Amino acid sequence: MRGLQWLRRMVRAAGSKARMVPNHGFCRAAADNQPSAQPTFGLLFDIDGVLVRGKMPIPSAKKAFQKLVNPLGQFLVPVVFVTNAGNCLRQKKADQLTHVLGVPISQEQIMMSHSPLRMFKQYHDKHVLVSGQGPVLDIAKHLGFSHPVTIDVLREQFPLLDMVDHSRRPKIPLSPAVDFPKIEAVVLFGEPVRWETNLQLMVDVLLTGGYPGKAPRQISYPHIPLLACNMDLMWMAEAQSPRFGHGIFMVCLENIYKKITGKDLKYEALMGKPSDVTYHYAEYLIRTQATARDWKKPIQTLYAVGDNLMTDIYGANLYNQYLQEESSRKGSKARMQAAAGTRAAAVSQEDEPINAWEGELSATSATSCRSILVCTGIYDPRLEVPSNPSDCITETVFHGHRDFRFDPALVEPGHVVEDVDAAVDLVFQLETFSPKE
Amino acid sequence: MRGLQWLRRMVRAAGSKARMVPNHGFCRAAADNQPSAQPTFGLLFDIDGVLVRGKMPIPSAKKAFQKLVNPLGQFLVPVVFVTNAGNCLRQKKADQLTHVLGVPISQEQIMMSHSPLRMFKQYHDKHVLVSGQGPVLDIAKHLGFSHPVTIDVLREQFPLLDMVDHSRRPKIPLSPAVDFPKIEAVVLFGEPVRWETNLQLMVDVLLTGGYPGKAPRQISYPHIPLLACNMDLMWMAEAQSPRFGHGIFMVCLENIYKKITGKDLKYEALMGKPSDVTYHYAEYLIRTQATARDWKKPIQTLYAVGDNLMTDIYGANLYNQYLQEESSRKGSKARMQAAAGTRAAAVSQEDEPINAWEGELSATSATSCRSILVCTGIYDPRLEVPSNPSDCITETVFHGHRDFRFDPALVEPGHVVEDVDAAVDLVFQLETFSPKE
Repeated sequence: MRGLQWLRRMVRAAGSKARMVPNHGFCRAAADNQPSAQPTFGLLFDIDGVLVRGKMPIPSAKKAFQKLVNPLGQFLVPVVFVTNAGNCLRQKKADQLTHVLGVPISQEQIMMSHSPLRMFKQYHDKHVLVSGQGPVLDIAKHLGFSHPVTIDVLREQFPLLDMVDHSRRPKIPLSPAVDFPKIEAVVLFGEPVRWETNLQLMVDVLLTGGYPGKAPRQISYPHIPLLACNMDLMWMAEAQSPRFGHGIFMVCLENIYKKITGKDLKYEALMGKPSDVTYHYAEYLIRTQATARDWKKPIQTLYAVGDNLMTDIYGANLYNQYLQEESSRKGSKARMQAAAGTRAAAVSQEDEPINAWEGELSATSATSCRSILVCTGIYDPRLEVPSNPSDCITETVFHGHRDFRFDPALVEPGHVVEDVDAAVDLVFQLETFSPKE
Repeated sequence: MRGLQWLRRMVRAAGSKARMVPNHGFCRAAADNQPSAQPTFGLLFDIDGVLVRGKMPIPSAKKAFQKLVNPLGQFLVPVVFVTNAGNCLRQKKADQLTHVLGVPISQEQIMMSHSPLRMFKQYHDKHVLVSGQGPVLDIAKHLGFSHPVTIDVLREQFPLLDMVDHSRRPKIPLSPAVDFPKIEAVVLFGEPVRWETNLQLMVDVLLTGGYPGKAPRQISYPHIPLLACNMDLMWMAEAQSPRFGHGIFMVCLENIYKKITGKDLKYEALMGKPSDVTYHYAEYLIRTQATARDWKKPIQTLYAVGDNLMTDIYGANLYNQYLQEESSRKGSKARMQAAAGTRAAAVSQEDEPINAWEGELSATSATSCRSILVCTGIYDPRLEVPSNPSDCITETVFHGHRDFRFDPALVEPGHVVEDVDAAVDLVFQLETFSPKE
């Protein structure tokens, strides 16, 4: 996993001119009806396990959201939904939430795990293998990829590769496509179906340097770039215990690759919570909403409400750590500038924004990001309470991704509440925010 | 992995009265036509990568088998096919081989990876979850299991568990079966299809102590007994590079379990090559054939022909190691008996055969088992030759199962030949055996 500094360098190298200003749902006209109390905080909500479980709404969600809007259905504070789901377009997710919460949600309030792929322009014109469910090709094309290839297409081109399911083996001898272009990168959007097919073909592509029909004389390593969205190991649906998420599929891929080659599978990038790129972008969406409502005060505090210690809590705490380091760095810089009597002396090239979106994205106004854990999802307080009171909550098995270090401080929630309604009440209380017009 | 000593104790504990005398295909009447040269060796052939690749026969196989039979189609030496495949009944495999080799093969010459499950009588009347492809229920019942449950049945009983494939999620809210009996063991016959479903449901069963509909207050560990057949990581079909085998599925299961629980998945038993139980049973089938042909000389040497270093070669060498230790032990015992002047003094209870089949199974006549590697399958001499001549062939990545230690001596083949025809020629030469009537 790599951070924003790395992303800056990468985007600069690719000569990107991307513009990341979305068409936000909060138009300036709406500012006429703004409440007298202008918020200085924003809310980030996880969806599964906080607002819904599988298809079922969590009862307190509707109640909580009634408190967050005025009678016109306008939000009283900036709200972004940060989900690691990635199997649909943002508009569909917004429509689902509008139905579940009973208040209008726009697609500009939705941040999905694959959203940062817009920035990886150096792969957009390449022949990339994509995996996942739902309209994966549409999602890839919306993000900017012009030549995505699905696992199913690869399977048709190379019919001898997928042999696990006896009933799907070719009935007659077939030859592989001889002139199929090289696969130049692999992008994992989310958990696919028929894992045996996906795992076999992906491993073939990685071992052969993008030519799965050939038998390599030696294994191609380092393998071609691999990018993955959504590392969630498990998630909470209607069943009483957590269900497999994309992180479980990644565990399979990583360990098969390791078993066959003896080497580590490496990710060019990991997106979605808890990666910091995700929170940067979420904060940017929060600021955009505030600006659209003509709220002048800077958004200083973010509250991230989630049910998963390893994604929602870890991610919020990691971003909080970043904000505090950034704040301290800014303080030092200001002192240095004051001492030197000049601004330019203290600005390195690394600190300059690369282009419009990146300058805006990295210009954080928040100084802290607080994590709030709810008990309606994957977190089960009965399981997590250690038998020995001197043990802390974080001494359970690490369910984060292989490439994220286990740091007890990062999985310790700022607050633990029963549900999302209690979370909203808590935030209003902490901010002494009165949602009256 | 545990050996024959452990198996003896286990079967004794279960009070088994199993009889392991199959209806062999070599009837005594055939002895009238026996060749003048009586063999003192037997042949064990792997199938995939030695005789066939996928559905395609390997050209030299037919030629080799013409040398092994007399004009009546009777084998001149005892021959057993030892395959790790486990997705069909033995008769089907025998019919396939008869077609491929052009000589009549009987089901008594077939040893499949699941064959030793006949001996695990303590599970036969229990409610066991079985996974694999093909007629898994029929196979389980033939082996003696009276209450096998498939993954598909479990999925129907607990419709909220299998959530990875969005299109197969339940459309309406459903409740799990409340009175479904406890699953008491899990048996992996071979690689299933829809790995996400199989992995999720197996992990649910293991975490909940056999009650997958319940949310456990704590993870059940040690988990319920898990037995697995066929550890082959990969195998050679028509494609130019090896295809995923059941061993890859097991890598997924082991690593998912480890990631979720932090603990190791444990096997009650691992069957199929390279486990020694498999070779004991194969030798027993070889002896049975010799007896049926009225060949009086003991079978002293076994030759195991295969394409896989980690199963065929490792397994044959491991069994050879056992035979040599056994031979040395017998020598010591004889010397002790001679010294003590009595037989009884040197026989411990551990050494007594438990019942008819086991006495016969463990009464080895062979004193060595020699491994012969062919280059028509998964073994690729181009890949395996190290660039540095001081490296040996065994310094490649270990593709054996997690629970088998890597021992360079065990993956070093006794002989390397081009194909199965060359293997037969080599054996005849080593044994100075002339197949003339």
